[in-house]
Amino acid sequence: MARRIVFWFDFASTYSYLSAMRIEEAAQRHGLTVVWEPFLLGPIFAAQGWTSSPFNLYPSKGRYMWRDMERLCEMRGLPFVRPDPFPQNGLAAARLALVSRELDRIAPFARAVYSAEFGRGKDISNPAVLAECWETAGLPLHAMEQARAEETKKALFAQGERAIQAGLFGAPSFVVSEELFWGDDRLDQAIALATTL
Amino acid sequence: MARRIVFWFDFASTYSYLSAMRIEEAAQRHGLTVVWEPFLLGPIFAAQGWTSSPFNLYPSKGRYMWRDMERLCEMRGLPFVRPDPFPQNGLAAARLALVSRELDRIAPFARAVYSAEFGRGKDISNPAVLAECWETAGLPLHAMEQARAEETKKALFAQGERAIQAGLFGAPSFVVSEELFWGDDRLDQAIALATTL
Repeated sequence: MARRIVFWFDFASTYSYLSAMRIEEAAQRHGLTVVWEPFLLGPIFAAQGWTSSPFNLYPSKGRYMWRDMERLCEMRGLPFVRPDPFPQNGLAAARLALVSRELDRIAPFARAVYSAEFGRGKDISNPAVLAECWETAGLPLHAMEQARAEETKKALFAQGERAIQAGLFGAPSFVVSEELFWGDDRLDQAIALATTL
Repeated sequence: MARRIVFWFDFASTYSYLSAMRIEEAAQRHGLTVVWEPFLLGPIFAAQGWTSSPFNLYPSKGRYMWRDMERLCEMRGLPFVRPDPFPQNGLAAARLALVSRELDRIAPFARAVYSAEFGRGKDISNPAVLAECWETAGLPLHAMEQARAEETKKALFAQGERAIQAGLFGAPSFVVSEELFWGDDRLDQAIALATTL
């Protein structure tokens, strides 16, 4: 079995954009497989009493995050546009991501969604935007239907349960063996651990 | 004027320990001066409705932080003992830090306090522990008195006001020119910016 790194991401999460855009290349460089795990942070935040993103609830933290993202994107040559509203509603995108995983195209689809959202400031709850991302990922349009199936809705709910079981409280998160790493800042450390297994 | 990096730290903050133990060496390597700025996060947290450390209020985040600190300290060859209670009451230590700064010994004093607290699990509200740190930093015991002076109490309060003005919401934080950096993970980036000024 190939050594692997499990990547938990939420489409509304700014820092997940940073990881999504580099994790496949970084993992491949070390002979690792990435397991892409979409989930929704909303219910986890709600369970601890947060009604919105902590970046909205705590304004000084929010102001800092936008500047930090701007600096990091500039350093990495990534375009960065602040989407409005923030956070975006990532429910439809997350369901589609699960379908794209079944079709072995989750990495390109997730990157297309993040690029639309944070690279061009698009609304990722808009079906037309999602259809464009779907096509960018080389997926057949008729397969989008499956995202509305009861089975897919249940699968996304199950992702949330698994995320809580794994101790997740934010995104991006990485799991290697039993070790949890939180934040794009820990991606290199997670990869380093995976290479020793 | 020497190029400088302003280092805001709270003695109760675990991640501030990581930065305190390396910032002088890292800054000197780049010809930078470190301005040590002690402050208390408590009032800032209280203003946003937190009655304790977020690591206590949000248990999954807390569990992660302890493991993350363990891993980082191991990587850096730093001893790490979880102090009980957490967070420690850092009021007396912060006042002493301001006095030690007047005597040009704040860096060794702050390192001694962090080492006692997180390297050996000592209670840094204990006057005997603080006296030991004071002596380790080569400071004269009689000068400790000054920490109880009204002037020192006011100076620490003023630090808190300045921290809020600077947009701080956590520790460690670094300010270079007008740019704010939060977290030990951003120390290298802050230093890199300072070297370009």
